[in-house]
Amino acid sequence: MTTLTIAELASFCSSQGIPCEIDGDPSVRIGAVATLEDAREGQVSFLSNPKYLGHLAATQASAVLVRPDVQPPRPMNLIRTPDPYAAVTAAIVRLHGHRRPPQWGLSPKAHIAPTAKLGRNPNIAPNVHIDEDVQIGDNATFYPGVYIGRGCRVGDNALFFPNVVLYENCFLGDRVTIHAGSIIGEDGLGYAPVDGKWVKIPQIGNVVIGDDVEIGANCTVDRATLGSTQIGSGTKFSNLIAIGHGTRIGPDCMFVAQVGIAGSVQVGRHVTVAGQAGIVGHITIGDNATVGARAGVTNSVEPGVTVLGEPAVPINECKRQVAVVQRLPELKNAVKRMRRDLDRLMKQLEERNPEG
Amino acid sequence: MTTLTIAELASFCSSQGIPCEIDGDPSVRIGAVATLEDAREGQVSFLSNPKYLGHLAATQASAVLVRPDVQPPRPMNLIRTPDPYAAVTAAIVRLHGHRRPPQWGLSPKAHIAPTAKLGRNPNIAPNVHIDEDVQIGDNATFYPGVYIGRGCRVGDNALFFPNVVLYENCFLGDRVTIHAGSIIGEDGLGYAPVDGKWVKIPQIGNVVIGDDVEIGANCTVDRATLGSTQIGSGTKFSNLIAIGHGTRIGPDCMFVAQVGIAGSVQVGRHVTVAGQAGIVGHITIGDNATVGARAGVTNSVEPGVTVLGEPAVPINECKRQVAVVQRLPELKNAVKRMRRDLDRLMKQLEERNPEG
Amino acid sequence: MTTLTIAELASFCSSQGIPCEIDGDPSVRIGAVATLEDAREGQVSFLSNPKYLGHLAATQASAVLVRPDVQPPRPMNLIRTPDPYAAVTAAIVRLHGHRRPPQWGLSPKAHIAPTAKLGRNPNIAPNVHIDEDVQIGDNATFYPGVYIGRGCRVGDNALFFPNVVLYENCFLGDRVTIHAGSIIGEDGLGYAPVDGKWVKIPQIGNVVIGDDVEIGANCTVDRATLGSTQIGSGTKFSNLIAIGHGTRIGPDCMFVAQVGIAGSVQVGRHVTVAGQAGIVGHITIGDNATVGARAGVTNSVEPGVTVLGEPAVPINECKRQVAVVQRLPELKNAVKRMRRDLDRLMKQLEERNPEG
Repeated sequence: MTTLTIAELASFCSSQGIPCEIDGDPSVRIGAVATLEDAREGQVSFLSNPKYLGHLAATQASAVLVRPDVQPPRPMNLIRTPDPYAAVTAAIVRLHGHRRPPQWGLSPKAHIAPTAKLGRNPNIAPNVHIDEDVQIGDNATFYPGVYIGRGCRVGDNALFFPNVVLYENCFLGDRVTIHAGSIIGEDGLGYAPVDGKWVKIPQIGNVVIGDDVEIGANCTVDRATLGSTQIGSGTKFSNLIAIGHGTRIGPDCMFVAQVGIAGSVQVGRHVTVAGQAGIVGHITIGDNATVGARAGVTNSVEPGVTVLGEPAVPINECKRQVAVVQRLPELKNAVKRMRRDLDRLMKQLEERNPEG
Repeated sequence: MTTLTIAELASFCSSQGIPCEIDGDPSVRIGAVATLEDAREGQVSFLSNPKYLGHLAATQASAVLVRPDVQPPRPMNLIRTPDPYAAVTAAIVRLHGHRRPPQWGLSPKAHIAPTAKLGRNPNIAPNVHIDEDVQIGDNATFYPGVYIGRGCRVGDNALFFPNVVLYENCFLGDRVTIHAGSIIGEDGLGYAPVDGKWVKIPQIGNVVIGDDVEIGANCTVDRATLGSTQIGSGTKFSNLIAIGHGTRIGPDCMFVAQVGIAGSVQVGRHVTVAGQAGIVGHITIGDNATVGARAGVTNSVEPGVTVLGEPAVPINECKRQVAVVQRLPELKNAVKRMRRDLDRLMKQLEERNPEG
Repeated sequence: MTTLTIAELASFCSSQGIPCEIDGDPSVRIGAVATLEDAREGQVSFLSNPKYLGHLAATQASAVLVRPDVQPPRPMNLIRTPDPYAAVTAAIVRLHGHRRPPQWGLSPKAHIAPTAKLGRNPNIAPNVHIDEDVQIGDNATFYPGVYIGRGCRVGDNALFFPNVVLYENCFLGDRVTIHAGSIIGEDGLGYAPVDGKWVKIPQIGNVVIGDDVEIGANCTVDRATLGSTQIGSGTKFSNLIAIGHGTRIGPDCMFVAQVGIAGSVQVGRHVTVAGQAGIVGHITIGDNATVGARAGVTNSVEPGVTVLGEPAVPINECKRQVAVVQRLPELKNAVKRMRRDLDRLMKQLEERNPEG
């Protein structure tokens, strides 16, 4: 197990562009990162969300990463930094590192077609299936049950967890991680209506995924009917996300769990789509836009705009609508009272001026 | 690769009941179908959604399928037809055909119980598991990782992609396609509450699926507690759809991604349920009804009606509600102004007639 | 096949704490449970939901479990009980029993690491993969395609259906059932934003699941970044549910299909979350609370409270809001009429008192 003194950790973070100052004993040794609640002696914790300030007094952590202005409730070893979240990320990487998958080498129990080509250092588990004419780069790790369809091309350093499925002819860049159970390139809902029946349209397109993409568990990404469904480099997906055929997603986006995007949508770069949101087909979401949780987007969204609600509108408008809706019973009563006052007034006037 | 002249393609479409007229050079040869954006020389494209009219000028397609009234921005080879979408479907089928799965024959590495019966021409991959007393029809294609539980019966021409799971005793018709990762016949949420605990009710029913059904990826279809959960012939599902126990879905329906239907729902024929919509248990959705995207259906829907919203109401009503909600801040201000006017009026009258 | 007389069944139910009285011939024999619609001679059915009272006349069941006050439309054998649903549960257990999985013993075609420890009576299918340092209790049944990552500990009587995946170091109690395709312990959406890119934070926590938990098909439960994502004993999940990293769910909860819970949520005991509901991160749901179908919960919920709507509010408030929204066009017209009346009045007064 790696251990570091607080001084060494602070110095490491600073070297990563995260300036740190020690407020306490720099010689204390730490070997792990933990939450304020779980941390024990010899561990470092962090406080980023002020909501959890109350946990600071009770923590048993030997040191805590905090913002410069935090006042501890009792004497404790602090590492002060403007970005405790970035610092704890650096600490986790330094002390724990990334997952080390099992080492299978090239399992003789994997099923690899004769025409498939694997790069150097393959780490392929038993019961992986790789079809004809597949090309895989160096250092691929495929867990059991992974299936790679005919003609797929996957770059270097692929990491596919159990039961990931790539349908035929999909192209993936370097350093793509796909979590267990996700399906890439299944047919979209492409049917032509003929006499009340649905006639299948062969889905002859594919899926193209850039570099440094990470896809969560049990997602589904439709292949395009024609052309390519695309996911740009650096984009990250959580779980149970559905992407429709022909949709093109830009680089560096982040999609939270259970998001659904219909077909032929253009999503720009660095777009955030929060949990359970849905986007209808054939629209455009501009660069740096944000779609709020559970929003139902039915119209294109301008770059940089945050939308929310059902149908989704810019967030301030949505909040105003929600506020008014929540006070509707009040408004209704106000109208009722006014009607009564007005009727009384009208009656008064009529009585005074019967010839009115 | 198949290639055709435009004249041959137009003639083929016409033979399929899609009348076509050539406006251009009938001798030009094409070998593939592509989108307006992606098409190159030697390829045919199409324009169906007027939204993409702007792409017509720039396309490099050698011919384009368009509606009779489309005016091209420059001279180009057109095939005019009242239904370009049907025509492009026919063109894809003619030029590209349907997917040709790998040919495994009956893999010796599949696990097939001695009492299971397979029809003619099985195409069963390694690591397929078929349990006791299963009956499978002719021409079955099962990709790796498919699991068929005890006593299931599957008709002819089944096509199951990797990791499809059928729990025991489910019955499927002919020409059923199930995409990767979908689960058919898992237990529904059947528990009896006893003293604050949940006691499991054995789910002794099954799932019955008709002919020509296609199920997308990572769907889940609960078996019935008693009797059968049913999916009618010709019905098509997209991905990540959840069907509750005992629900019966009619023929020729179409369900878009992430739809959820609770238990004991009756869905008629030719019903469309758009993406992320949800339907509560124990209600009825009439024939030819449409449930809009993200609708939350809490009451039965009459045949032919389109519902939308949360809770779902007929679409015009929903649109009216949405319009009014979006103008609520305006309404609120109108009420405020009126109250002010009315108060002033009341005060004036009181001042004039203090004995009022 | 087990058969019982009605008298024996009634006596069995009574012995389970479900008092029953026979109204009919106690010597009639039954061998199965079925719905009112499907039941044939020799079968018992039940009527619990009054919605299905109309099916009573037509049923061919030899006996029906009903509430004490039900008046049958014709002479039939009834078993009267205050809780027909509990009684039919007991009848299903007595007559049909629970699923009996295939018996594989310890398949030589399973891949079990040398350092993994299995308890007594393992029932492990071909193509199960168990990694290094895993500990599994007695009587485990793992269907094909199950993957158990390094260092996981699973208690006695585990029942994992095909293609269940446990990532490394997750801890599960006794009698845990996980349905096909569910993923436990994948990485959550943990990234630090650096210069417009997403930098992965190693997710070094795990998932801890109590006793008697049942998880539906194709769910995903994120491992914690630090510490543990938790699911309390006795909690039951339906399908396609997403649980975010670090969320802690108490005992005896019930979650319906397609529920999504973000990270760092505290869910109390015996909480019900209905279908397609979503809960944002870092909030608390109190004991015995209920989240209605498709609710979007953005604030903590007090114990025992039922919330509904988007954003979710206590159910009565939500219903009032919905009622008002549905009558908004009416309100709008009332305001319009009032404005007209008021304007007329103001004009009248002005005309009479031009010096006003």
